[in-house]
Order: sequence, then structure tokens, then C-alpha cells
Amino acid sequence: MSTPLRLGIAGLGTVGIGVVKIVQKHAEMLEMRAGRAVTISAVCASSRSKNRDADISGYAWEDDPVALAHRDDVDVIVELMGGDDGPAKALVEAALRNGKDVVTANKALLAHHGNELASLAELNGRALRFEAAVAGGIPVIKSMIEGLAGNKIRRVMGVMNGTCNYILTRMESAGLPYDTVFEEARQLGYLEADPNLDVGGIDAGHKLSLLSAIAFGTKVDFDAVVLQGIGAISINDIRLARDMGYSIKLLGVTQMTGRGLEQRMTPCLVPETHPLGQLQGGTNMVVVEGDSVGQIVLRGAGAGEGPTASAVMGDVMDIARGLNFATFGQPIGSLVEAPAAVVSTGASWYLRMTLLDKPGALAKIATILGNVGVSIDRMRQYTHDDAHAPVLIVTHKASSDDIALALERFNESGVVVGAPMALRIEDV
Amino acid sequence: MSTPLRLGIAGLGTVGIGVVKIVQKHAEMLEMRAGRAVTISAVCASSRSKNRDADISGYAWEDDPVALAHRDDVDVIVELMGGDDGPAKALVEAALRNGKDVVTANKALLAHHGNELASLAELNGRALRFEAAVAGGIPVIKSMIEGLAGNKIRRVMGVMNGTCNYILTRMESAGLPYDTVFEEARQLGYLEADPNLDVGGIDAGHKLSLLSAIAFGTKVDFDAVVLQGIGAISINDIRLARDMGYSIKLLGVTQMTGRGLEQRMTPCLVPETHPLGQLQGGTNMVVVEGDSVGQIVLRGAGAGEGPTASAVMGDVMDIARGLNFATFGQPIGSLVEAPAAVVSTGASWYLRMTLLDKPGALAKIATILGNVGVSIDRMRQYTHDDAHAPVLIVTHKASSDDIALALERFNESGVVVGAPMALRIEDV
Repeated sequence: MSTPLRLGIAGLGTVGIGVVKIVQKHAEMLEMRAGRAVTISAVCASSRSKNRDADISGYAWEDDPVALAHRDDVDVIVELMGGDDGPAKALVEAALRNGKDVVTANKALLAHHGNELASLAELNGRALRFEAAVAGGIPVIKSMIEGLAGNKIRRVMGVMNGTCNYILTRMESAGLPYDTVFEEARQLGYLEADPNLDVGGIDAGHKLSLLSAIAFGTKVDFDAVVLQGIGAISINDIRLARDMGYSIKLLGVTQMTGRGLEQRMTPCLVPETHPLGQLQGGTNMVVVEGDSVGQIVLRGAGAGEGPTASAVMGDVMDIARGLNFATFGQPIGSLVEAPAAVVSTGASWYLRMTLLDKPGALAKIATILGNVGVSIDRMRQYTHDDAHAPVLIVTHKASSDDIALALERFNESGVVVGAPMALRIEDV
Repeated sequence: MSTPLRLGIAGLGTVGIGVVKIVQKHAEMLEMRAGRAVTISAVCASSRSKNRDADISGYAWEDDPVALAHRDDVDVIVELMGGDDGPAKALVEAALRNGKDVVTANKALLAHHGNELASLAELNGRALRFEAAVAGGIPVIKSMIEGLAGNKIRRVMGVMNGTCNYILTRMESAGLPYDTVFEEARQLGYLEADPNLDVGGIDAGHKLSLLSAIAFGTKVDFDAVVLQGIGAISINDIRLARDMGYSIKLLGVTQMTGRGLEQRMTPCLVPETHPLGQLQGGTNMVVVEGDSVGQIVLRGAGAGEGPTASAVMGDVMDIARGLNFATFGQPIGSLVEAPAAVVSTGASWYLRMTLLDKPGALAKIATILGNVGVSIDRMRQYTHDDAHAPVLIVTHKASSDDIALALERFNESGVVVGAPMALRIEDV
């Protein structure tokens, strides 16, 4: 019989305990599938005495996570502490330097330090795997690096923050305003300690930056991700979009263009008939477009104990089976530094604003659009009871620059009340 | 630099030429990703002089496919000839015996001979890979064997024959009867030479039998798949189902039950709100349910040059990278012979029949159901112009046995005109 693969787990929160449970309850199945046993040697967490949903008394305890990386009875470090720096980074570095493979669910760490950590892994001939960092239980990284390895990837899109999708779909189904649903989500424990990580699109942006590197063979460049949160989306926007056959999603899009790598994590309109438009609640979805395969859609739970632990175990099982490849699918030295596309690919836009109900207001808006070279596909003015007329415009294809310019001139026009809302209509 | 991985391709139809094109146009990308070049040494097809959409003049030609397996300049045999026996089987056997890895898209071959071929691969320490055999470009086999390796699989469902889904969705969207759309599909080249492979569910059944083996660690047992084609589905059935919020799909379901392994490829009703119910046209979808991950949905093109060649290249790239594992995810000796479940899991059923419009007819039907222990959830009798009343019944949970008995008694009742239709409502 082969030697067992021995894990050292840092972080015993929901996901860590989920991993412990799988290793315990499926020991025989895992051994059958991997051809060797998967065991746990040692664990580490912030509190030793905390009540946990699994028996960890059989494992050695370390107070210092980095100590796990120095143990002779550990082959793989499973890093589930989180944080884009500090102990998680120290542990992963120590592990790779000491010849341990690493499996992590830490998107923030890799979004900020992925290039250097991947170099370190390559230098030491170790695996650095992170399926659990992107879209929970969906095997998207494996699908992209391995299953679609024969494809030049054209575009990757994804709804990768379940909390945002929960908020947006709940606003619509319950007819509740953003603030109310946000508070609901907080009480349900769906929000990070810093909610801006979720609703500001940062968490999802971290994930997108990792998929970009895999898709296009570029260095991870989180700073180049254009981020826009969902805080300004009103229930009115959701209804108007639906009225025209669209759903509003916090949508990540990454594609290589003639102007550089375009990475966006912004609220977009997508057709309600596309799987992205139909996605309800906390579910995640990633759409990968390859030159041979066409469009592949992957859907599943994006968070939670079981799904995330499943992704961690997928990586662990690959290591147990001896499957290894470069962190981002190709040697770190071959990843290029792509310039960030400043102006995004042209798209139709949804423009929603409130106009002063006076003669010539609509004409003024239409003239501004004409002057910046944006042509109008559809325009609707809704009935209203006061002096403020809600107006909705769908444009023909326009660049983000032209739209930004139009918005600026709207604000100076003297006929627009409050801030106009501009949302991209993604051509999915 | 490492040595190149050299392919011998048998079969230069759509998919074979698709593979040639990828190897030619993406040579640099493939080498970057795999760390070694992927090249083609030799090819074989039925006609050497046929006009092809790729330049194959640089490759050695073999008239006999088995000769590919004896070439010293071939590392991997790519079998794209098809057929569940004959030359394809002879080639795969010769290749494995001669120490070549094998990548195939041949579901019929593996459904009938998968166990023995997997044994041969294991005995010779070679890879036998078949991602392209199931659901075209969707990396479903990779996802199940590797990504979800930490899960006990509970159920796998799939729409895996694009032609059938095209026919069913086209019947609904165009309001055309089965025979007309069948003829349309034939003219579009969507049907196999023997159309029963498609519309009889055999092709999809082949695929399901392979997923069963992976999901449950059982020997491939295609003969145990309960097959029912779509030929008896009327446009009326599709409309009545839609009227109640369901779509009709040729749905494959495999699950391990207390009564044995249940494998079915039959037309079923699924909720129109589930991704399965929303699937239009020739697209494929596989739904995998694991005890940790929950429900994962994978969607993509199920056939065609690009998608199928993409799947073949995914397997080739795994071999180039040195990733290998057992054909069905665990050693062939550990696959168990599961008894086939004779009676399927209980479900609600859709029963549609035509009754003679005379007093007591409906009561007779209701009595029959009551006598066999099937209770009625909903019943609708539709308006009609002649002496025949269309009746639709949705039952509460009932076994396939009880439904079969009820149908038998309906036929003997003297009040049912023609054959009643019974379709399972799958609890997705």
C-alpha cells in the first residue's frame, strides 16, 4: 500500500471543519479513489477550546500556523484562515519553502500575492492549488486549466458573489429596497465583517483576477479590475430592466482585447433568458467561452461548508493522485504583464435618470447623447405624478468613455435630477 | 525541452479534423501549457483522397487503423472512428497492449466493452480517456472523477442527446408534430444513420452508463439502462406539460438505491424553472449531486467539431502533462457489480389519455388508480368537440410498477381510447 497523504489544516471555521468531516466520514472512499489514504496530522486555529462540529482530538494541535509548515508528518498544508496578508501568507510561504504542497481557499491572498506565491511553488516544485477560492464547489479552475486546455479562451464571465446575487434577486422577488435586504443579509450572516468586500465587488473581483490569469496567461493583476458595487442599484432599476427583458447581476467579465486586458466586476444587465439572467439567490455561475468549445456554463453553490470543502478536497485528491501542474496552468515565467484596457469594449447601455418635467428636457438629453456620438435604441418616459419624469434610455453600442462623457454632461444640463444611473448591457 | 507527445489519429471525420486543426493552429499555446509539444505522427481514415478541411500531408498515412498502434512514433492513439465493435475495438486493444495511451470519443464502444478495456489499460499502465464520449465539450468526466472526488455522488441527471432536445424544443416553439420535426432534423444532418440511436435514447443511454460507473464505482452496465425514446411524445403532451409548469426532456437519471442501481433514459417532466427545464435546442446539460457539493450544473454544446475536439484535446493535454488516473476513477478491480433496480424510485407521474365521453368513464379511471394504490394530485378534463375527452392526471408519488399496472387496467377498462401516455415527473 502507498503511503498516506497527510494534511495539516490551518483554520477550523466552517470550511475547515467541513474538510475534517469529509476526511473522517469518507476515509475508505477517498483511499479507493486516490490509491492511498488521506489523513490529517495536525490542525491549527485561533481557539483550541471552541466547541466544534467534529472531533479533532486525534490530531496534533499547533498554536502557530507556521509551525504546521515545519512538521515532518505533514505533506500538504490546507490554508483556510483567510486574509490577504499576515499569517496566511507567512504559512503558505513557509509551507512551499519546506517542500509542502498547499491547498487554499484564500482568494484575497492570491489576488494580491498570487504571482510571487506561484513563483515560490514553481521554484520548490510544489503544488499551489486554489479551486475553493473561486465559485465555491464549482470545479471552474480545473475545467479551465485542464478540460479546456485545447482552447484559446475568448471571455470568462461570472456571478461569483452569492451575497450580491441574493440581495439583487431578493429585492426583486420581495419588492424590498436595497437597504432592507442588505440588513436582512447581514442578519442571516451572509455578509463579510467588512460588507464592502461583498457589495463593493471586491471579493468577486479577487476571484475574477485569478480566472483572468488562467484564461489569458497573464500575471494576476487585481489592481486593474474595474470595480463597481451594487449599492446604487434601486428596486426601480431592477423592475425597469425586467420590463425590457433583462436581469441585473453583479457580473465579472474578463477578456483580452486589442486595447489590453479588460477586467470588470460591475452590475450589468443580462438577458433574462440566458442562464446568467436566470440565476437566483446565492448560487454562483461561471461562463467560459473558448474558440473550440463555444460557451460552457458551470453553476453551483458558491459558498458554504459543503461546497467549499468539496473544492478543497478536489485539490487534495489531485495531489494524492500525483496530478500536478503550474498554479495558473503554465510556467510562471511565461505569464505576461498585459496592459489593462482603459476603455471597455463597446456595449449597449441602460441609462436611467429623472428629468425635470419641463419643455425641451428630453430633447436636451437626446442632443447630449448625439453630441458625444451615442445613438439611442429605445427610450421610455414613464408616467409620473410630480414634476419629475423618470426616463429610461437604451443606447446602441457605445464605449464606456462616451457614456462617462454623456453622464458628465447630463449632470451639467440643468434638467437631470439626482445622479443618473448607467449600466452596461453585456452581450452574453 | 521535453520530448513531444505524438498522436496517431484514427478517423478524420468532423471531430478528427477538428483535433488536427487545434494541434496545428495552437501548437505554441499547447506547448506552453503542457510543457512539451503536441504533434501528430500518423493518421488513418476510410478514404485517403477525400477533400478535407485541414492539411494532413505532413502526417504518415495508414490504411489499417491497427497499424497506428504499432508505430514507434506514436504515443497516444486518438480513436474517432466510432462503432461499438470491429476496427475501433481492435485498435484500442492493440494500442493499450502496445503501451500507447488512448483517447476516444466512442461511447458505444465503452458502454459495451468499457470494463474489459479499462482492465486492459490498467494491466498495461496506460490511460484510457473518454471525455469526448459524454456531453461533447462539457468537462463532466473530469469534474466528476477529479473535482468532485471528495463527494459521495447521490444522483446524476442529464440531457445528453442534443438531437432529441432539438426535436422536443422545436416541436414546442414551432408548433410542429413529431414526424415533421424528425424529418427536419434528418435533413439538417442531426440524426445518426440509424436514427433510433438518437430518438430511441440508445446514444444517450450509452453515455449514462459511463457516468454511472464513475459516480457509483460500479461496472459499466449498459444493458441495465431502462430506455424509452421520444417517438411517442406528442405536441399535445408538450403543451399540457407546459400548462402545468413543466418541460418534457429525454432525461438520463442514475442513482444508487436500496433496491440497486437505477439507470433510466426516458422522457420526463422537469420544472420549467430548473436549468434542465430551460434547456433549448441541441445544448447538453449534466447535473451532478454530491453529498458535500450539492447540485452542480454543467451546460454546453453536446456535439459538433469544436466542442468534441475540445474534449479530446483536454484528455490529450492531461496525458501530455503526465496526469493519469484509473479509467473510471478507481481501480477496475474495485468496481462492483451492482444489481439493477427493477422498480424505479417513487415519483409523481403525468398520465394523459383519451376517454370515451360517456357517464362514469372518469370515475372508472379514478377507481382503477385507487385500486392500484395511486392517489391523484391533479386531474383536468379538457373541452372537446367529439365523443373523445382528453384527460390529464398528475399523481402523487407512485412506483413505476404501480403505474404500469394502472396503464394495463386502463387498456382493459373499455373507456380509454388509444394508448395512454405515462411520463415520470422527475424531482430535480
